[in-house]
Amino acid sequence: MDLNADLGEGFGIWALGDDAALLDVITSANVACGFHAGDPSIMRRVCVAASDRAVRVGAQVGYRDLAGFGRRRIDYAFDELRDDVLYQIAALGGFCAVAGTRVSYVKPHGALYNTAARDLDIARVVARAVGEVDPTLRLVGLGGSRLLEAGREVGLGVAAEAFADRRYAPDGSLAPRALERAVIRDAGEAADQAVCIVCEHEVLAFDGTRVAVVADTLCIHGDTDGAVAIAAAVRRRLEQGGVVVSRL
Amino acid sequence: MDLNADLGEGFGIWALGDDAALLDVITSANVACGFHAGDPSIMRRVCVAASDRAVRVGAQVGYRDLAGFGRRRIDYAFDELRDDVLYQIAALGGFCAVAGTRVSYVKPHGALYNTAARDLDIARVVARAVGEVDPTLRLVGLGGSRLLEAGREVGLGVAAEAFADRRYAPDGSLAPRALERAVIRDAGEAADQAVCIVCEHEVLAFDGTRVAVVADTLCIHGDTDGAVAIAAAVRRRLEQGGVVVSRL
Amino acid sequence: MDLNADLGEGFGIWALGDDAALLDVITSANVACGFHAGDPSIMRRVCVAASDRAVRVGAQVGYRDLAGFGRRRIDYAFDELRDDVLYQIAALGGFCAVAGTRVSYVKPHGALYNTAARDLDIARVVARAVGEVDPTLRLVGLGGSRLLEAGREVGLGVAAEAFADRRYAPDGSLAPRALERAVIRDAGEAADQAVCIVCEHEVLAFDGTRVAVVADTLCIHGDTDGAVAIAAAVRRRLEQGGVVVSRL
Amino acid sequence: MDLNADLGEGFGIWALGDDAALLDVITSANVACGFHAGDPSIMRRVCVAASDRAVRVGAQVGYRDLAGFGRRRIDYAFDELRDDVLYQIAALGGFCAVAGTRVSYVKPHGALYNTAARDLDIARVVARAVGEVDPTLRLVGLGGSRLLEAGREVGLGVAAEAFADRRYAPDGSLAPRALERAVIRDAGEAADQAVCIVCEHEVLAFDGTRVAVVADTLCIHGDTDGAVAIAAAVRRRLEQGGVVVSRL
Repeated sequence: MDLNADLGEGFGIWALGDDAALLDVITSANVACGFHAGDPSIMRRVCVAASDRAVRVGAQVGYRDLAGFGRRRIDYAFDELRDDVLYQIAALGGFCAVAGTRVSYVKPHGALYNTAARDLDIARVVARAVGEVDPTLRLVGLGGSRLLEAGREVGLGVAAEAFADRRYAPDGSLAPRALERAVIRDAGEAADQAVCIVCEHEVLAFDGTRVAVVADTLCIHGDTDGAVAIAAAVRRRLEQGGVVVSRL
Repeated sequence: MDLNADLGEGFGIWALGDDAALLDVITSANVACGFHAGDPSIMRRVCVAASDRAVRVGAQVGYRDLAGFGRRRIDYAFDELRDDVLYQIAALGGFCAVAGTRVSYVKPHGALYNTAARDLDIARVVARAVGEVDPTLRLVGLGGSRLLEAGREVGLGVAAEAFADRRYAPDGSLAPRALERAVIRDAGEAADQAVCIVCEHEVLAFDGTRVAVVADTLCIHGDTDGAVAIAAAVRRRLEQGGVVVSRL
Repeated sequence: MDLNADLGEGFGIWALGDDAALLDVITSANVACGFHAGDPSIMRRVCVAASDRAVRVGAQVGYRDLAGFGRRRIDYAFDELRDDVLYQIAALGGFCAVAGTRVSYVKPHGALYNTAARDLDIARVVARAVGEVDPTLRLVGLGGSRLLEAGREVGLGVAAEAFADRRYAPDGSLAPRALERAVIRDAGEAADQAVCIVCEHEVLAFDGTRVAVVADTLCIHGDTDGAVAIAAAVRRRLEQGGVVVSRL
Repeated sequence: MDLNADLGEGFGIWALGDDAALLDVITSANVACGFHAGDPSIMRRVCVAASDRAVRVGAQVGYRDLAGFGRRRIDYAFDELRDDVLYQIAALGGFCAVAGTRVSYVKPHGALYNTAARDLDIARVVARAVGEVDPTLRLVGLGGSRLLEAGREVGLGVAAEAFADRRYAPDGSLAPRALERAVIRDAGEAADQAVCIVCEHEVLAFDGTRVAVVADTLCIHGDTDGAVAIAAAVRRRLEQGGVVVSRL
């Protein structure tokens, strides 16, 4: 099982999350590319550190919205979205090359992640942009999402993602952040959910329903308090359960 | 002789210069990469158009300063400058690949061009960043500048640039823009200067002094009024004089 | 009848529209405030020029989106929208004071204009932000829109706007820009529509239907080709018809 | 004696410093205005909190450089600088009014602070911009700096600032940050220096020289580790020494 987390989400003087600590736990780093977070110097630093630890690098692409951290949906024209996505992946590729690694996958961030999960037109724009850059790039998205469907259409490899630290709705979608308890902050609980997803292929929704979940990779959020502790607990519990944690 | 011009210097709704017309005259396009001008959709458009016309693409890298169009010197830390330069080149590379071409050279823009011409430390930062991305990239700068010196140190191919439409000072530097007549706006005069540079390897400075000038490429400014007419006149006069205009 | 146009929509080196020429025709200038267009030096220049000609100044507030010129809807949180609107009005106020005038009204721009026309919650956020800054500010929006409704709720003076150069749909809304002929580019036609709106209080929709239109102010778009000619034709025809063109 | 600190220096999702804790110790809040740090929602929050605690609000104006946090010198044209400064002060004024307070003073930030301390031309541009907005605004700068000289020329009230937590050079300037020990991180040491400045009107430079220092206000840096502890220690020690800590 692969463990991924968002890294390099600072900007200039501002830091976010503990990149170094997370890199010791995860196997895939979703590196912000400068449009909603991240700047060139941060990108280099994270790529070098990830490469040193044999952690896979993915492009965490988002809307051009530093003020909103990419969490506000923006009604891009399709061509603008395609070009913004391509730009970000290519820029990250430069730092990967310098660090002796490569971009292995693309994972949309924030509002783009959610929109591309539901809207097939937008999912296709993202998938085609990824394919244009490099058809061997893998596309990472929510299991069962339109994004993965679009990725398959385009001929990309896809990876279904599930969440150790987010509560699910009975229909298999993520509970909206507005909901209390949407985010699991207890490391033990998150580890339990991880094991449940990986070994039972299901998860308990917030109403107690059992929901089937397919996961090629588990996402750990890096910007919550205790993110590192959660990530470490998830990894430990998985390994105790005999699951091999390794990059996709 | 190579003819280069700055292209893709719009941003969003804002246009600057007549890219399409210039592409029919020049042999090398310095494409803005989004930090001082240019955006992903413009970059794609220019790369595709340049590739269609067999015009060579170069990265026009600049300070992160849309409000100042990269014309204000910014006291970057060396590492920041290195990373901003690398980011821009890599991003442009993505659009070149899509357009079936590649980044062939790098030419700093505006205040970075001037600073790297005079300051060897900064010139070295730029040259090393270029070499990091791809040691086969050529570095374009003012003839006799520190930038070319740094490029040679690093082992890059370099190209000395001269200006058909800018007046020279007796010491071989460009007359400051603040000076009246610093910019040559008459197409005939610019063409005369071009021929003088290419065939006589010298130029008349604003005080009448003859100054030796080495040029591997001639720059035409795209954002002045009549830029296209000037470019066309320069090319015509050179070709009438038996000079082969072709990309470097 | 008041004539308004969008002014100060350049940014840095980039210009848009012919501000000086429009200022000789219009009576109200919607000045961009730096979030989707406009920068401090442009704002000062336009405020001074408007004040010199006794043209009223309004704040053209928009989403923070230079790359999209404020034309892309962004899902702001209400508090963010309130604060971004307030910031822009206050900043413009500084330049108005220096120019010996004041902000007289607020008119949302682009996607915010359209969203606030239809969505009462967002309309209320804008209206309240305007009232917070100065309850004597007038709110300008599409006649019959939610924005004007929200403005009245909050106790603001409102002004209904109609368009001389945009085609209407049978329901009184504007024909979407995607539609061919959505924008009227012929000065005579625009002048006819202006007279029809002002004197007959109605307009011919694109399907020939007569639609009732209330207008306290007519908008002229400044960024279309021939904007100045259209504005001048509208004003001339109105004055020939005995309409007094004067600021609200 | 007045105690001032930089507040509101986050941006979007990114936080910097502990604004709430500092507000309980200081008497003057230098609020970032959105060009190098700060955003509209942060500005409102800080203005409201400062007003609630009767802490005076000042505009912390800086270069337009989020990526560099305003710490990189930018060669602005004078008019651009004037207009950027005015814009920032005016925008902050909007939030002060909403919070029931006003902008009381202006203090340049980072590279602009340092440049305006040494360069009289730039100091005059800043001082005049401040005077244009409101001639009753006070200008805060390093004691003995060109900025205060320019402020007096323009007829502004000025306040000389000294630093409890920065080491001085023998000539009365601040030791450059590059120097080890440039920043005093020990609360006791900072408190000692504060008492020395306020009561003895002098400070020990890093080489042991006694340097005369005039101070109307003491600056506490909010973004260093332990900033709150330092601020509290300084205030406590001053009050134990019989100094009345109150806003200017």
